[in-house]
Amino acid sequence: MQNIYDNKVFFKEYEEMRSKDINANKLIEQPIFNSMLPMLRGKRILDLGCGTGEFCRLAKSEGASFVMGIDCSKNMLNVAKNCNDGITYLNLPMENLGKLNDKFDIVTSSLAFHYVEDFDKLIGDISKLLISGGELIFSQEHPVATAFKSPKNERIDNKIDIHGKRYYLLSDYNNIGKRVVKWNVSGVIKYHRNFSEIINTLIRHGFIITKVMESYADEEAIKKEPKYAYQNDRPYFLFISAKKS
Amino acid sequence: MQNIYDNKVFFKEYEEMRSKDINANKLIEQPIFNSMLPMLRGKRILDLGCGTGEFCRLAKSEGASFVMGIDCSKNMLNVAKNCNDGITYLNLPMENLGKLNDKFDIVTSSLAFHYVEDFDKLIGDISKLLISGGELIFSQEHPVATAFKSPKNERIDNKIDIHGKRYYLLSDYNNIGKRVVKWNVSGVIKYHRNFSEIINTLIRHGFIITKVMESYADEEAIKKEPKYAYQNDRPYFLFISAKKS
Repeated sequence: MQNIYDNKVFFKEYEEMRSKDINANKLIEQPIFNSMLPMLRGKRILDLGCGTGEFCRLAKSEGASFVMGIDCSKNMLNVAKNCNDGITYLNLPMENLGKLNDKFDIVTSSLAFHYVEDFDKLIGDISKLLISGGELIFSQEHPVATAFKSPKNERIDNKIDIHGKRYYLLSDYNNIGKRVVKWNVSGVIKYHRNFSEIINTLIRHGFIITKVMESYADEEAIKKEPKYAYQNDRPYFLFISAKKS
Repeated sequence: MQNIYDNKVFFKEYEEMRSKDINANKLIEQPIFNSMLPMLRGKRILDLGCGTGEFCRLAKSEGASFVMGIDCSKNMLNVAKNCNDGITYLNLPMENLGKLNDKFDIVTSSLAFHYVEDFDKLIGDISKLLISGGELIFSQEHPVATAFKSPKNERIDNKIDIHGKRYYLLSDYNNIGKRVVKWNVSGVIKYHRNFSEIINTLIRHGFIITKVMESYADEEAIKKEPKYAYQNDRPYFLFISAKKS
């Protein structure tokens, strides 16, 4: 996994975006993610790609008995560790999850799985860390949003605006793999997986799908930030909850 | 449900398409659908939207102990009934599934669910007809393919071709409901549901998702009919198998 969050230019842009009261995370992603959470009270929780610890602090405040956050970015963890709040933070990429020996009731991850190349290994590792009946709740970029792949030696756009409508190129939807995109800085590496690949990988590792959600900017979000209407030109985030059988 | 298959003009066009050795059903839809089937030998099978009985005959030839096919189209069933082969055909729309009292091991449906308005009722009815541990395997148009909704008083295309690439409008992806499209004839009524709506409805009625597939025209299909390359501009069909818990 590329550690883009320790890139200075990227991190500055990212911090500025997240520090605003109005951003797509707070207005669109978090409300849907939080609506999918089971009761956290008394639970042992592991948050993957915990960033600056926002979700870890929520879990702690909701009464979780133990909260661990892991992230590959030291920049992000340095912010998280500023709060002395009994949360365990580890500087560990998700690829090395197999090194943990703990058992958890709940594993969460918000908008981080699309940075991981080997999804099969990731889900297998999570399955081992969860108790039987334990739950995984995660969000990631929607497959329709990660599908686009820039062809080599060709300048092609992933979208076209015509008469006030936005059209998207989807021809690489079933072409699973690496994507190099510009987000704050050039060269951000993500991995596209279609819907069936995501669902079937979970099932293969003994998970039962319990709920799926797709993002939509509701009236309230668009009222607070009219430009978020573009978030409804296609789904941007995908949310899945699953139970270990 | 609209009974478009008893429209004379539609049915003539449809019969001509299906009678060809090379069509998207035979080259793309059926291979994926058949790969998802469990063993049919000795099983009681109900096929929803059985059309001319193609799948019913396959099930019978594979040793199913009882095969029933239902369809709202008398035209289609008249073709099916020409083969005297011990299959039970009923002229029944899927909306009236609740009238059946039988129990089945397997319920199948190929490219018909997108014609049904009340998906929640349909899946509830199927759940009642299945034994515990029974399986539902179905295909339907992919949510990305049914998303487009023509705005009133506006002429807008669902796709734009630029520099040999095809771009799609997805802005009604999360807008579930009726779609009126042209397919052989004008005014064909379908119902769009996004991925989360389909999966969550199955889960709500006690189904455990066992596999999801999304269509792709492979090299063999494109070799037989080069124009099917367009089928990879976006996924056209969605396939789901689920087990009644």
